[in-house]
Amino acid sequence: MNGVVLENISNPQDLRHLPVSDLPQLALELRNYIIDTLAHHPGHLASSLGTVELCIALHYVFNTPDDKVIFDVGHQAYAHKILTGRRDAFPTIRTYGGISGFPKMEESPYDAFGTGHSSTSISAALGMAMASKLQGNVDRQHIAVIGDGSLTGGEAFEALNNAGVSKANIIVVLNDNGISIDKAVGGLSRYLVKITASRQYNDLKERVWRKTGGDKGRSRSRNFFSKTLAALKSSLLDGANLFESLGFRYFGPIDGHDTRQLVETLDQLKRLKGPKLLHIVTTKGKGLKAAENNPVTYHAPGRFDAETGVQLNKESDNQPPKYQDVFGHTIVELAEQNKKIVGITPAMPTGCSLNMMMEQMPDRAFDVGIAEQHAVTFAAGLAAQGMVPFCNIYSSFMQRAYDQVIHDVALQKLHVVMCLDRAGLVGEDGSTHHGAFDMAALRMVPNLTICAPMDEHELRNMMFTAQADDSGPFVIRYPRGASVHSDWKNPMQRLPIGKGRCVAEGKNVALLTIGHIGNEAARAREELSKQGISVGQYDMRFVKPIDTDLLDNVARQFRHVVTVEDGCLEGGFGSAVVEYYQQRRSSDESYPLPEITRLGIPDRFIMHGTVGQLRHECGIDAESILATLQNILS
Amino acid sequence: MNGVVLENISNPQDLRHLPVSDLPQLALELRNYIIDTLAHHPGHLASSLGTVELCIALHYVFNTPDDKVIFDVGHQAYAHKILTGRRDAFPTIRTYGGISGFPKMEESPYDAFGTGHSSTSISAALGMAMASKLQGNVDRQHIAVIGDGSLTGGEAFEALNNAGVSKANIIVVLNDNGISIDKAVGGLSRYLVKITASRQYNDLKERVWRKTGGDKGRSRSRNFFSKTLAALKSSLLDGANLFESLGFRYFGPIDGHDTRQLVETLDQLKRLKGPKLLHIVTTKGKGLKAAENNPVTYHAPGRFDAETGVQLNKESDNQPPKYQDVFGHTIVELAEQNKKIVGITPAMPTGCSLNMMMEQMPDRAFDVGIAEQHAVTFAAGLAAQGMVPFCNIYSSFMQRAYDQVIHDVALQKLHVVMCLDRAGLVGEDGSTHHGAFDMAALRMVPNLTICAPMDEHELRNMMFTAQADDSGPFVIRYPRGASVHSDWKNPMQRLPIGKGRCVAEGKNVALLTIGHIGNEAARAREELSKQGISVGQYDMRFVKPIDTDLLDNVARQFRHVVTVEDGCLEGGFGSAVVEYYQQRRSSDESYPLPEITRLGIPDRFIMHGTVGQLRHECGIDAESILATLQNILS
Repeated sequence: MNGVVLENISNPQDLRHLPVSDLPQLALELRNYIIDTLAHHPGHLASSLGTVELCIALHYVFNTPDDKVIFDVGHQAYAHKILTGRRDAFPTIRTYGGISGFPKMEESPYDAFGTGHSSTSISAALGMAMASKLQGNVDRQHIAVIGDGSLTGGEAFEALNNAGVSKANIIVVLNDNGISIDKAVGGLSRYLVKITASRQYNDLKERVWRKTGGDKGRSRSRNFFSKTLAALKSSLLDGANLFESLGFRYFGPIDGHDTRQLVETLDQLKRLKGPKLLHIVTTKGKGLKAAENNPVTYHAPGRFDAETGVQLNKESDNQPPKYQDVFGHTIVELAEQNKKIVGITPAMPTGCSLNMMMEQMPDRAFDVGIAEQHAVTFAAGLAAQGMVPFCNIYSSFMQRAYDQVIHDVALQKLHVVMCLDRAGLVGEDGSTHHGAFDMAALRMVPNLTICAPMDEHELRNMMFTAQADDSGPFVIRYPRGASVHSDWKNPMQRLPIGKGRCVAEGKNVALLTIGHIGNEAARAREELSKQGISVGQYDMRFVKPIDTDLLDNVARQFRHVVTVEDGCLEGGFGSAVVEYYQQRRSSDESYPLPEITRLGIPDRFIMHGTVGQLRHECGIDAESILATLQNILS
Repeated sequence: MNGVVLENISNPQDLRHLPVSDLPQLALELRNYIIDTLAHHPGHLASSLGTVELCIALHYVFNTPDDKVIFDVGHQAYAHKILTGRRDAFPTIRTYGGISGFPKMEESPYDAFGTGHSSTSISAALGMAMASKLQGNVDRQHIAVIGDGSLTGGEAFEALNNAGVSKANIIVVLNDNGISIDKAVGGLSRYLVKITASRQYNDLKERVWRKTGGDKGRSRSRNFFSKTLAALKSSLLDGANLFESLGFRYFGPIDGHDTRQLVETLDQLKRLKGPKLLHIVTTKGKGLKAAENNPVTYHAPGRFDAETGVQLNKESDNQPPKYQDVFGHTIVELAEQNKKIVGITPAMPTGCSLNMMMEQMPDRAFDVGIAEQHAVTFAAGLAAQGMVPFCNIYSSFMQRAYDQVIHDVALQKLHVVMCLDRAGLVGEDGSTHHGAFDMAALRMVPNLTICAPMDEHELRNMMFTAQADDSGPFVIRYPRGASVHSDWKNPMQRLPIGKGRCVAEGKNVALLTIGHIGNEAARAREELSKQGISVGQYDMRFVKPIDTDLLDNVARQFRHVVTVEDGCLEGGFGSAVVEYYQQRRSSDESYPLPEITRLGIPDRFIMHGTVGQLRHECGIDAESILATLQNILS
């Protein structure tokens, strides 16, 4: 499937033997290889198509892996992976045991730093540049490749601010395609459009510099201009560009699909010391018309026809809906009734389905950019003035706003509803994206209510409950993908806060489950039931406050308890159960302490694969739960 | 003690009745009141002295509390507190039951949003502005007061980026004193100096605008200038200022101690719609010479002479050293031996004592600005290239870098040593600053080693151990303030990772303690010992991995275990002990499960007071631990 040039390129050394004139052909072949492969093996398509020429130019110009290239987020790095020893492994991307969809230090020396979450690349590159400096290596290059979307993340700004005065040998390549996963938003995005549209900027700068040197006119007017321009030169021009304000030398914008220009420019930048920023303009989805026209859909399109781009395997109408869609429809439904409700997403409107509300109620739904910290405090500000914000953030990205949840929301008991999408094991995105830590990390935070729905009806009820009264900060965590029923639109009702429910009565063993993973437990239970063994199952609904009446009843009825959660075992839901039982027993020796088996994500990072494979690895799929139950009962 | 003007000002309504000409006198009296009060009741002196005129002008011009003023960080808000109904309560500031050192929504309607951690004010103000807009209130003003230091925090940039395109009615007052707690650092700081130094900026802008409108010269040269300036006007000038790049209208810089100018300018800004930034220049410590000359020392100077500023109650030589000083000396000592060691602090060099290394090894110690996220990923970048960074961050500020600890450090098993200063209850700074959550929040993160020293010898040993081998990510948490011995400089030795130690043998009850709070437990134990009762005590040293051999021995020897930690109970150290014992018991029915009592910070936010008062409130001071032991033994 590889083209004639690509088939001879196994690593960057091979690449560097090519004449520059062959690079456009290589780009074509790389692009075709990516399209042909991803047509069958789903992955991040559009981002990677946009950076093919850049990846070629970087490895052509720089002495990788000694020079360090860090891809921010990293889902644009497929061409990089193919060029750095992983051409033949590429079809295994994102599969269990295959290569990762993101850069991973342990996968290749060419992956200088692992990424997945946005806005880390400049910090990491600066750290490496400082290390090189301290180690006396003045030649090593350190390159951060960052999109215009990722640049809105606060950490990137913190790093620019620090790097700008560092004299470090660092090149930031700003890959500007006007889009992150959804359309880029915010002042920075608008600014980039402006400096790109007016190519005058750099021409002008040059002309002004030339002019202020040469022109020494004598007339009053020419004197004025002279003085004005001299003042401009000293006080304005230096800092005239946002990046130059912060101490970077700014270059560009240049066409990110012009391989020759990229090679020449990078080659020149290599010779300049200090922090530099190269602004390149690319087209997300470049080379596949359908993706160029619709980069949001083609960010990760699933399977598609390699020629036409037409997506395959669309869901049929009888499939259960995704939790995301239920969220999207339901927030609109609730917001129609409750005028206080607003929606917030940090750059994931399509992923979390807040785009439905953004279309129908554009004044009340906000995409704030890749900015989780800001999203949460912004929500707190809205809540402080009597609104009821639903702030939807992927579970693993909420780690970015942990302090804001504690300091701005929980401490002030503000009525913010935090919807944690992508909670639990997410599958192919792997270790950086699993929502493994949310329950454990939030359970300790005072004033929070934390719940997780077992199906989409429960999700709707929890969303309804969260907005019905001022119940203070409210967290709802739910997984990526399909829920349970196809008739998702139940009439919503208020749930009693901190109360679980009995899913099935039984004997000997009680399954205590939280959230969607309860369906795996239910399958295990039903399997046992076919064998004439009935165990109990309780959907706890709330991690905090936990239903202590239910736990007391369970302790009286069952000798053994199995907790099941799609989250980390240390400090998580099962830990809350254990804490409660131990506390009861310590204050009352007659309390019937059950034996407790905790199932959940073990104390290691889980890699990528299908959700089913990963649940099996963690022992929380139906089959594993069944085995645990049989072991206890035997 | 109040002056003649101040004694008649109980609230902003009173203030607004004054003629503008009285405001400088009020500023003088306010300043004297702050100095006189803080001379005896320690607090954040220098920041608050710098914003006296600003606080007056804000409440004079704006219709607070309907208009919303949010003080970023908030330790500069003392004049605001005095002017808004808390004049007479001011001497109780930061004391148990007294008013808080930071704005608190529950304390006053004039405290529009609680702060403490930096860089949240613009996000909160934007949220409030959006709420006002949605509620149809077009007149309400929303003002964020933020220092140049806080502006380096990434969240502030995220908010600027979002606000710049929002058309929200928001005023950001940039309080630029060139200093946060220590000297401000980074590209932004340098930039602010530049635009302030060249007052040309605004004059120039006006002249250019005027000129491009009026001048229609005909000569080739004048034509060129004309065209150049027109181009400037359209493409450059708009975005010529960093803040204007992001969509803000920029005003200033103006003198932040000129009350009349402040009042006039704010009054004008009030009439302009959309996002605006007013840059004011102030002197930190204004009005007390000693503080103006040394604002770092006078950030929070403790008791001092109100006339001369001379600090009182300096420690005598026989006092035990602070953990901070031991850290500062020890990292220098280690770095002299191990060339790989570097030091990193996000803007707290004096507070954490990394300033010692910065002075002695300026190339190897970095103050990266208020930028915890960047600090941790920067450390990860250094570690990826073979350095051994010690990244010192206050425990509660590490909440800001939670994702970076997980995603950049732990996932990649990088050898970063994270020193969490101010762990546990910090005392007078109160709820926003207690390091209550670190052990629980980090315990669940795979690949981390987490330890806490019981005294300064242990701190040194832990620091030595952390750098001795590549043990992967290593966390050392220790409290603010004095340690135990006066002879702090023990020869350092390597500790076995994951192993605790027996402090005292005993019977019936075993105290399992982690970190410095073990000294409170020791005092309780010694008290019992005087009564002839000996209980055991084990300093676990490591939260993760926990010493399971030790726990097994304890279970065999003792019927009752009391865990003591200076951290939250949910999911914390005691929870780890409970998890382990329950797990052992569930797999082995003969395992001697002890009764367990967990002592630690309960599930609510703890306010301010002395550390002793707060420990007592939480039941973890010696007296409370003694009572718990007596209760168990009775």
